[in-house]
Amino acid sequence: MVDFRHERTVAWTDDTVVLIDQTQLPQRFTHLVCRRAEDVAEAIQRMVVRGAPAIGVAAAMGLVLATVQSRATTAKSLLADLERAGDLLRRTRPTAVNLSWAVERVLRKARQRHEPEAMRRVVREEALRMAEEDIRANQRMGRYGAALLEDGDRVLTHCSTGTLATVGYGTALGVIRAARAQGKCIHVYTTETRPALQGARLNAYELREDGADVTLIADTMVGHCMRTGRVKKVITGADRITRTGHVFNKIGTYQLAVLAARHTLPFYVAAPWSTFDLRNGWEQVVIEERHVDEVVKVRGRRIAPKGVSVFNPAFDMTPPELVSALVTERGVLHPPLAQAIDRVA
Amino acid sequence: MVDFRHERTVAWTDDTVVLIDQTQLPQRFTHLVCRRAEDVAEAIQRMVVRGAPAIGVAAAMGLVLATVQSRATTAKSLLADLERAGDLLRRTRPTAVNLSWAVERVLRKARQRHEPEAMRRVVREEALRMAEEDIRANQRMGRYGAALLEDGDRVLTHCSTGTLATVGYGTALGVIRAARAQGKCIHVYTTETRPALQGARLNAYELREDGADVTLIADTMVGHCMRTGRVKKVITGADRITRTGHVFNKIGTYQLAVLAARHTLPFYVAAPWSTFDLRNGWEQVVIEERHVDEVVKVRGRRIAPKGVSVFNPAFDMTPPELVSALVTERGVLHPPLAQAIDRVA
Repeated sequence: MVDFRHERTVAWTDDTVVLIDQTQLPQRFTHLVCRRAEDVAEAIQRMVVRGAPAIGVAAAMGLVLATVQSRATTAKSLLADLERAGDLLRRTRPTAVNLSWAVERVLRKARQRHEPEAMRRVVREEALRMAEEDIRANQRMGRYGAALLEDGDRVLTHCSTGTLATVGYGTALGVIRAARAQGKCIHVYTTETRPALQGARLNAYELREDGADVTLIADTMVGHCMRTGRVKKVITGADRITRTGHVFNKIGTYQLAVLAARHTLPFYVAAPWSTFDLRNGWEQVVIEERHVDEVVKVRGRRIAPKGVSVFNPAFDMTPPELVSALVTERGVLHPPLAQAIDRVA
Repeated sequence: MVDFRHERTVAWTDDTVVLIDQTQLPQRFTHLVCRRAEDVAEAIQRMVVRGAPAIGVAAAMGLVLATVQSRATTAKSLLADLERAGDLLRRTRPTAVNLSWAVERVLRKARQRHEPEAMRRVVREEALRMAEEDIRANQRMGRYGAALLEDGDRVLTHCSTGTLATVGYGTALGVIRAARAQGKCIHVYTTETRPALQGARLNAYELREDGADVTLIADTMVGHCMRTGRVKKVITGADRITRTGHVFNKIGTYQLAVLAARHTLPFYVAAPWSTFDLRNGWEQVVIEERHVDEVVKVRGRRIAPKGVSVFNPAFDMTPPELVSALVTERGVLHPPLAQAIDRVA
């Protein structure tokens, strides 16, 4: 048994970044040790680590590795090395804003130092601080969000949003975790979340290790579960939320929100403030398209004819009118979301 | 290349029932030869043959096998053997009405004969007639339905609804086939249709063999494809349609209909008259739940933690208010559907 209430998905240990290797779950619980920023970039790209908050902190720690790798003896050349590593890390995945937010925040700290050793120190301090902040933000979101769930609730969630999507504790799953810790009995329905199956492989696994009451369904079954009253509320995470309250999250989230609205069920989104993008409009957000093999192969086995054309967007956009509330560490934000976001910004 | 325009999914050859083995597709195109009614029942249960019209005719041919197997020398004992085989075949899958419709139709013919040889002859004639009728009905549906599709249309479909779901030609895919035969350029989006992946394994394969322009998407991507304008119309098959116009079809159909309504896209259902159940109300229809392994394993590989609880309904219900039109061999039925169905019944 893994105790995901206290496990860390991303950790800094002995000058290495240690990641839970999520490509191996649920079959094997193993870690991948990254010694270079390039290793972290590859791990993010291959989804060894995934989940917006987790990849943000992983990228920040990738920059710490870059300071260890760099032979620079001047602040200027060290900063150049850091900026190169930052570009590499930022480019791995375009949709989650946490990645560029984390890189930007660490680089900003680095730029304030004018000696290489001081720069190395602040980069490390900032990355470790971000890891701690992530856990605290999630715990605070949990406390705020738990008030939205009642004893006996039947809650649908999508993708992986627990410890495995963050440094620890989780976003949407953190809210469920906090409600359960308050003694509320919550039945969790988790979609399998094709194509990468984060719901089946990671969320169902984490919930089971937690001893939660969990039922796995295929993505096709959501509407039926709502129509027949099995599911009463929906809560998901997010990869980016714009100032207007448009939510970018794992592909399939948008249709959950449409289905929830059709059945007049609340649709909640839990995300830390690092997921908010106050600069870009929703039209500017790039939705990552991933390799066709994610769709045509499952665990290495082909499930579709060779050469078939595939469309594989990894994220979608849910407009604010479909969101009942945003759960953040700054409180629960209710519609109209744009004003609520502005108030706490 | 397999020419699915002229292929038969279910055929009567040399006193055997020859089925395309759909569990092997798209890797291998092979046939399963059934010599006993029990073999046909098992093939339906294992989804060697699936699709409401196809399993109806397969069951009818299973009854022909029962007449060959039976050593009965009196009409009474032959009829008893046939009724036993009919019960077995009917029990394999509860939701598609074509199965019990086909068994009932053959047994009714049998009951009109009072000598065993005459009974054997009419059972065979009736089963073969049903196979021919299925193809003709599909071709007629194709002609009627093709008028709903325009040159340049981008049409989403779900599950397998072509030759592989019928004796030949197909229902929803038959409509697309007919539109293409008229020279219309149709871009087809097909969902993969978890859990059994009939869209990825069968529909995408059949469309590709046909030379159609086809894009495979995961079931999570439907909403995004509609919101971004990639998909303009939806057409599916059906496993049972009640007198009130409630459509039972492959799990996931209901949410396609909700999503189509949200985006004001037409949602069409193509099904032969054998799929209509004029006797039962929609509340009486049993939705089959299948084995958890369909969800937790893909092509034999485990994708979810051991022991996780799974809900696996194989079908869902779409209410008539979400259906833009029903395409049948008796014409295209427009809302209000209950009246339109009564008019052609």
